[in-house]
Amino acid sequence: MDRLSLNQRTTERWSVAEAVDGCVRAGLQWIGLWREPVQACGVAEAARLVADAGLRVSSLCRGGFITEFPGAAREAALDDNRRAIDEAAALGADCLVLVVGGLPSGSRDLAGARARVADGVAALVPYAEAAGVRLALEPMHPLYCADRGVLSTLDQALDMAAPFAPSSVGVVVDTFHVWWDPTVEAAIARSAGRIASFQVCDWITPFPADALLSRGMMGDGHIDFRHFRRLVDAAGFDGPIEVEIFNADVWAADPDEVVALMRKRYDEHVLG
Amino acid sequence: MDRLSLNQRTTERWSVAEAVDGCVRAGLQWIGLWREPVQACGVAEAARLVADAGLRVSSLCRGGFITEFPGAAREAALDDNRRAIDEAAALGADCLVLVVGGLPSGSRDLAGARARVADGVAALVPYAEAAGVRLALEPMHPLYCADRGVLSTLDQALDMAAPFAPSSVGVVVDTFHVWWDPTVEAAIARSAGRIASFQVCDWITPFPADALLSRGMMGDGHIDFRHFRRLVDAAGFDGPIEVEIFNADVWAADPDEVVALMRKRYDEHVLG
Repeated sequence: MDRLSLNQRTTERWSVAEAVDGCVRAGLQWIGLWREPVQACGVAEAARLVADAGLRVSSLCRGGFITEFPGAAREAALDDNRRAIDEAAALGADCLVLVVGGLPSGSRDLAGARARVADGVAALVPYAEAAGVRLALEPMHPLYCADRGVLSTLDQALDMAAPFAPSSVGVVVDTFHVWWDPTVEAAIARSAGRIASFQVCDWITPFPADALLSRGMMGDGHIDFRHFRRLVDAAGFDGPIEVEIFNADVWAADPDEVVALMRKRYDEHVLG
Repeated sequence: MDRLSLNQRTTERWSVAEAVDGCVRAGLQWIGLWREPVQACGVAEAARLVADAGLRVSSLCRGGFITEFPGAAREAALDDNRRAIDEAAALGADCLVLVVGGLPSGSRDLAGARARVADGVAALVPYAEAAGVRLALEPMHPLYCADRGVLSTLDQALDMAAPFAPSSVGVVVDTFHVWWDPTVEAAIARSAGRIASFQVCDWITPFPADALLSRGMMGDGHIDFRHFRRLVDAAGFDGPIEVEIFNADVWAADPDEVVALMRKRYDEHVLG
């Protein structure tokens, strides 16, 4: 089965319906969805569109943002994660990606924020297990540690996942986030059975002015994708390979052409 | 003895002579120098200015950029590092900081680039030892892995330094580069005897448009400096604490005011 999956943020202007149609036109069998466009479409309708098209959902983005101190904001975040779990279940998604959140406003206690992530995951696991949804901890590039994700390495994500069954809490291996890590080879080997999602996009230079739009199409940057694909292969992962690119130029291009280029670059740089 | 050191790039518009005068006006006892302004001044003249002012040089920035494939460019880089060693010796600098370099143009072989850094350091050590200069391997934030420094963690720098005497090859602990690392506490403890330079500047958000000017004054960002100062204290480091800030707003301000603010923020956020 073809493993290539379009994460819908790669074709940012497409609605769920348009992205589903685009995947079908391109002969893809997987799609990665985001909560906001799914909610705009309606969760049940999105699930129906995906099923009618014969697609499967490689991941739903995203839950997380659970670093707040105990109190109303934290409870609201945990409730929102339960809604995300419900949505992932309705979509039959392979996993719900968790971007864990940065430091609370004014706090410099990084260890404390990380401890609250571990507590938050523990609080969500029973709900996720009851819903049959696998949580996927996503280590984020250290660039985002302060404001987006205090989970900074794959080893750290694996340590946090360790108390739970691999079918309940997995990890995301996103090349953009982990490619620089001098111990990533050992960490991916250690991830055997825990890889819930494998995502590819490139690290490009010069670094763009908007740090959130710094991801490039495979082949436009510095990452050796075949190296990472072989590492996750060796760790036993045979699931979808998702392409998630946040990039102003990619978003400005015709989405069908983006999907065609994604297919070409996937064949050239990820496979083989 | 007062440990605070002004890295001259923090007051970017000042020449060596102006920075030396500024340090004296502010009652500082240490200065960190850069090769380009030192060369503009003349190495012997810079050494004389520093000595006459009663200052000591906490570090000279920078050698490195030794990731090229074997050939003329690599030999030229190694030769340039030998000149940097000569300059550090002439200035009596505590260490020569090595920013090791990014991936060679067109290469995606990160492991290979890292291996060439190790080879390059080995090639430079005898020359540095003969000159009485300590090399200081600087792990860079993973943000700079592709284009500036493939040495990405303190543990990796320590592994690379391990074959050599601590007096010959040390490491730089720069809060900006290492603050996010979930294993940094253990790595700093492991650095005992190897810390050649301790540098402080803050991680600020939102991330500035120019990734090279993303460093903030202590207190303006997310780093818990006291935590790091205590960690390096516990590792036995009692040398200078250098403030190196690349930031457009800092550079636009009056340098004497920048130094005064640096002193105030150092007292508030680093000491105690």
